[in-house]
Amino acid sequence: MGRKRRTGGRNAKSGRSGSGIIQLARRQVINPYQPIELANPDQIQKLHDTSMRILSELGIRVMSDRVMDIFEAAGASVDRGTSIIRLDESIVMEAVTKAPGKFTLTGRNPNKRLTIGGSNICFGLVAGPPNVHDRVNGRRDGNLADYENFIRLAHHFNAIDIIGNQVVSPMELPANNRHLDTYFANLTLSDLSFHCTGIGRGRALDGIRMMAISRGITVEAMRSDPGVITIISVNSPRLFDDAMAEGLITMAEHGQPVTVTPFTLMGAMTPVTLAAALAQQNAEALFGLALTQLVNPGAPVMYGAFTSNVDMRSGAPAFGTPENTKANMIAGQLARRYGLPYRTSNANASNAVDLQAAYETGMSTWGAVLGGGNMIYHAAGWLEGGLTASYEKFILDVEIIQNMTEFLRPVSFTEDELGFEAIKSVQTGGHFFGAQHTMDRYETAFYRPMLSDWTNYENWEAAGAQEAIERATLLWQRALEEYQEPPLDDSAREELDAYVAKRKEEIGDAEP
Amino acid sequence: MGRKRRTGGRNAKSGRSGSGIIQLARRQVINPYQPIELANPDQIQKLHDTSMRILSELGIRVMSDRVMDIFEAAGASVDRGTSIIRLDESIVMEAVTKAPGKFTLTGRNPNKRLTIGGSNICFGLVAGPPNVHDRVNGRRDGNLADYENFIRLAHHFNAIDIIGNQVVSPMELPANNRHLDTYFANLTLSDLSFHCTGIGRGRALDGIRMMAISRGITVEAMRSDPGVITIISVNSPRLFDDAMAEGLITMAEHGQPVTVTPFTLMGAMTPVTLAAALAQQNAEALFGLALTQLVNPGAPVMYGAFTSNVDMRSGAPAFGTPENTKANMIAGQLARRYGLPYRTSNANASNAVDLQAAYETGMSTWGAVLGGGNMIYHAAGWLEGGLTASYEKFILDVEIIQNMTEFLRPVSFTEDELGFEAIKSVQTGGHFFGAQHTMDRYETAFYRPMLSDWTNYENWEAAGAQEAIERATLLWQRALEEYQEPPLDDSAREELDAYVAKRKEEIGDAEP
Repeated sequence: MGRKRRTGGRNAKSGRSGSGIIQLARRQVINPYQPIELANPDQIQKLHDTSMRILSELGIRVMSDRVMDIFEAAGASVDRGTSIIRLDESIVMEAVTKAPGKFTLTGRNPNKRLTIGGSNICFGLVAGPPNVHDRVNGRRDGNLADYENFIRLAHHFNAIDIIGNQVVSPMELPANNRHLDTYFANLTLSDLSFHCTGIGRGRALDGIRMMAISRGITVEAMRSDPGVITIISVNSPRLFDDAMAEGLITMAEHGQPVTVTPFTLMGAMTPVTLAAALAQQNAEALFGLALTQLVNPGAPVMYGAFTSNVDMRSGAPAFGTPENTKANMIAGQLARRYGLPYRTSNANASNAVDLQAAYETGMSTWGAVLGGGNMIYHAAGWLEGGLTASYEKFILDVEIIQNMTEFLRPVSFTEDELGFEAIKSVQTGGHFFGAQHTMDRYETAFYRPMLSDWTNYENWEAAGAQEAIERATLLWQRALEEYQEPPLDDSAREELDAYVAKRKEEIGDAEP
Repeated sequence: MGRKRRTGGRNAKSGRSGSGIIQLARRQVINPYQPIELANPDQIQKLHDTSMRILSELGIRVMSDRVMDIFEAAGASVDRGTSIIRLDESIVMEAVTKAPGKFTLTGRNPNKRLTIGGSNICFGLVAGPPNVHDRVNGRRDGNLADYENFIRLAHHFNAIDIIGNQVVSPMELPANNRHLDTYFANLTLSDLSFHCTGIGRGRALDGIRMMAISRGITVEAMRSDPGVITIISVNSPRLFDDAMAEGLITMAEHGQPVTVTPFTLMGAMTPVTLAAALAQQNAEALFGLALTQLVNPGAPVMYGAFTSNVDMRSGAPAFGTPENTKANMIAGQLARRYGLPYRTSNANASNAVDLQAAYETGMSTWGAVLGGGNMIYHAAGWLEGGLTASYEKFILDVEIIQNMTEFLRPVSFTEDELGFEAIKSVQTGGHFFGAQHTMDRYETAFYRPMLSDWTNYENWEAAGAQEAIERATLLWQRALEEYQEPPLDDSAREELDAYVAKRKEEIGDAEP
C-alpha cells in the first residue's frame, strides 16, 4: 500500500471544499491566551534556587573530556577524577541568556517554515518506538515500509508540522547506518523539517548535510536558516553521556537547534515529588543548554521537559496523568523564566488505542498547550508509553490536534457576528436554519471533524454502527491512497542517493 | 444485580487503603487557578450590550399571565397582545444584583453539604435521557430499575456530588407521577442532594417536601438551608413557557436554588455565530434570573449555559467541539461579570462509548473546569448527545473527573518536597525507587486511577489484553456489588412512602 511514487502532483492539501479527507488548512498555530501558571513567582524562584544548588553543589557527571574542557574554560569546577562538573549560577545564567527566545526551522518547503518560540505551537510526529501497530496487520517490529508510511501520513495531514527522530525504528536495517535511510525517506516523501538523531557526531552531521542538499543550499548557508533540529536526552539523574554530548556540540557548532530534554520519571529517575522532579529536570536541562551556548553563543535551543510519574506498584511509566499535566505546565513556566522556547509532549501509557489512550492524550494535550508548549513532540501516533507507533492513534491524535487548533482560534465579536439583526429576524420559538445570517456562514462557521460522527443513533446504526476506532482505520488507509509525494528536483534526489551510498560505504561496520 | 438492601452498613467510601474499587476520598473540589478568559473586557461589554438590546428592543415571549403581572409590576413593558415582555437594563440589573454569589445545598447527609459558587466545582450525574445502555444488556428504554442503579452508582462514587433531574426517564411509569418514584429513589438509595423537575408547580413542590421529610426538617426551615435545586430551560429563541415559569416561581418562593439554562444550539436556536449565540443566551438567562429575584429577592440562583453547535449538514447537535468549549468558557466570564454561580456541562455527541466519546468529553471537561464552572451538569454517564445514559460512560467520566480533580490539587513546594537531600542521596545515573524520600511517600505520591491500566504490553496481553471499555463494564458491575445503601430512619422512610402514596392518589390522571 502507498508505495507508488507520484512526483509533481498537486499538493495533498484538502480544504473544506476539496475532495479527499476533510482537514484544516495548514497554518502556524498560535496560542492567543496566557499560559496557565500553577506555581507562583515565589515557587518558581524556589525551583530555580534548588536547581542552582544541584548544579553548584552536586554537579553533573559527563563522559566526555571535551565537555569537561569546555566547562573548565568557562570557569566551572571540574573534578577529573569523578568526571563531575559543578557550575555556579553565574556561569549557567550567563550562558543561557545568550540563547535566542525564538528561531525558525525550514525544511525543503520554505512555505512550511516554522517559527518556534513566543506563542507559536508546532506539533511533531511520534519518535522512537521500536514497534508499530495497526488494526489490520497487528503489532510488529519497526521496519522501513511502515516508517515510510508514517512519513507519508505526516506529510498528508496539515496538523503535523515536523517529523520527530525516527517515527519507528527500521529494525531490519543496520543500527549504524539506518539513520541515512530514514533521513532519505523524510526528505523524499515529505517536505517537512525533521529531527536528526543526536547520538554522536556522524548522525547529526549526516542530517545537516542531507537537509542542505535537499534545500539546494550549503551547510554554511543553513547556519543562519536552520533546517534540522535534535533532542538531546539526559541520563537522569545527573548523567550526560558522551555520544549525546557529541551530537549536541555538532548541532550547536552548525547553528542547528538543540533541545535538551531530561527524561525524568518521578520516583524512578527523580525523587517522587513533583517539586523535586522539576528542580532536577531544570538543573539538567540548563546544564545542556549552557553547553550549547559555550560551544556557539546564540545558537538556537529549546528547553525540553519530559517529567511524569510511574506506577509505584510496577515501576511502569505513566503519561497523561494529573502529575504529568502539572509538570508540563510548570516546566513551561520555567522555560519562560529563562526566555527559552519550550518543548513538551502529550503522551499516554495505554496499550491499545482505547478510551484510556484518548483521555490520557486529551489530558496531556491540554497540559502541553496551556502550559505554553512551543513544540509538542510525539503529538501523533504515540502508544504504549512510546514503545509502539500506531496508525489509528495517529488519526485520533490528528483529530485532537485539530480540535485544539480550532479552540485556539480567537472568537470574533464584530457587530455582524454579534448578530442582533439576525436574532431580530427570527420569531420567538422559531429557528435559524434558513436565516440569511446562517446561510451566509454555515459552510465555514464550525470546525468540521474528520473522525467524529454526529449522525443520530438510528442512522448511525443503520450505517453499520461504526465506532471511532474503525473509522480511524479507514482514514489512515484512505490518507495513504490520497497521499501525493511532494516534487523534488531530480538532481537533488540523485545527490541524496549518492550521499547515502557514499556514507554507507564509509561507515561500513563502524559507528558513523 | 445490586437490588439487595443493606441498611446501616459502613459508608461505601473506599480509600486508597480500603478494599473495594480504589477511588479518591470525597471532597469539595476547588479550582485554585484563574479561569481562562477568551474574551477581553471590551468584548464582554459588547455581549452584555447586545443582550440588553435583545431584552429591551425585542423582548421575551412568555406563556403565563402571572409572569407578565410580575414583570409589569417591576416596570417592564408588557405587550399583552403578543405576550412579549421588554426589559430595560436597569430592571434586569437591579434584579440580578440581588442574587447571592454563592449558596449551599444540603441533601440528607449534612457532611456532603455543597457550596456552590466562588471557585468551588460540583459534578452532577447525567440527567434526562430517554434511553439507557450498557455493554451487557444493550440499549433499551429508560426504566426504574436502571434509574435506581445509576443512583446507587452516583452514591458509590465520591466524584459525583449531586443527582441531576432524572438520570434516565422511567418510561414504564406514568408521566404525570413518575417524579415521585424518582425522588423516592434519590432519597432512599443515596444521601445526595438532587435536581427537582421544574415542569409546573406540583413537581417542584413534591421535590421540596420530600427532601424536607428525609432531612427531618420543615419546608420552612429548608428555606434558609436549601436542599434541592432545579434547572429551568428556555425555549430559545426568546420563549419562556408556562410550566417552566411555574416551576421557577415555586422554587424561588421556597428559597430553593434555580438555574436558568437556555438550550442554544448555534445555527438552530441561535444565529450560527458564537458571539450572537452568547448574546442571546445571556439575554434569555438574565430574563429568567431576574424573574427569580422579582419573586423572591435574594433567592439562590445559577447562571446556566448550554451553547454548542450543530452539524450543519444534518442539523444534529454536536458537543465537546471547539465551539462548545469556547462557549463554556466565555459564558463563565459572563456569569462572573454578574457575580453569579455558573452551571455548565461537559457533553459529547458520540453514539458509542468510544474514542470520540472520550476526546469530546475531555475537551468539554477542560472547557467547563477552566471556564470557571461551579456546577458541571451531566458530568457522568451522558451519551448520544444526551439521549442515552450509559453505564460504561459513567465509569469513563468518573475517571476523567478524578483526573481533573487531582490536576486541580495544588503542588507543594516545601523544602522537603523540593527534595535536594533526596537528589543528593542518589548517585548520577542511579534511581530513586529505594530512596527513603520515595519510601516515605510512594503510596500516596500519585493519583491512582481505577480505569487506566499501566502494566507493560506483555503483561497486559498475557492478562487478556483488556481494553478500557471492558474494564469499565467490570467496574460498574463491581460498584453495584460493593454499593451499600445509606441508612435512613424508619420513620422518615415511612413518611416518604406515605407521601408518595397520598400524592399519587391526589394526582390521579391529572398533571401534578
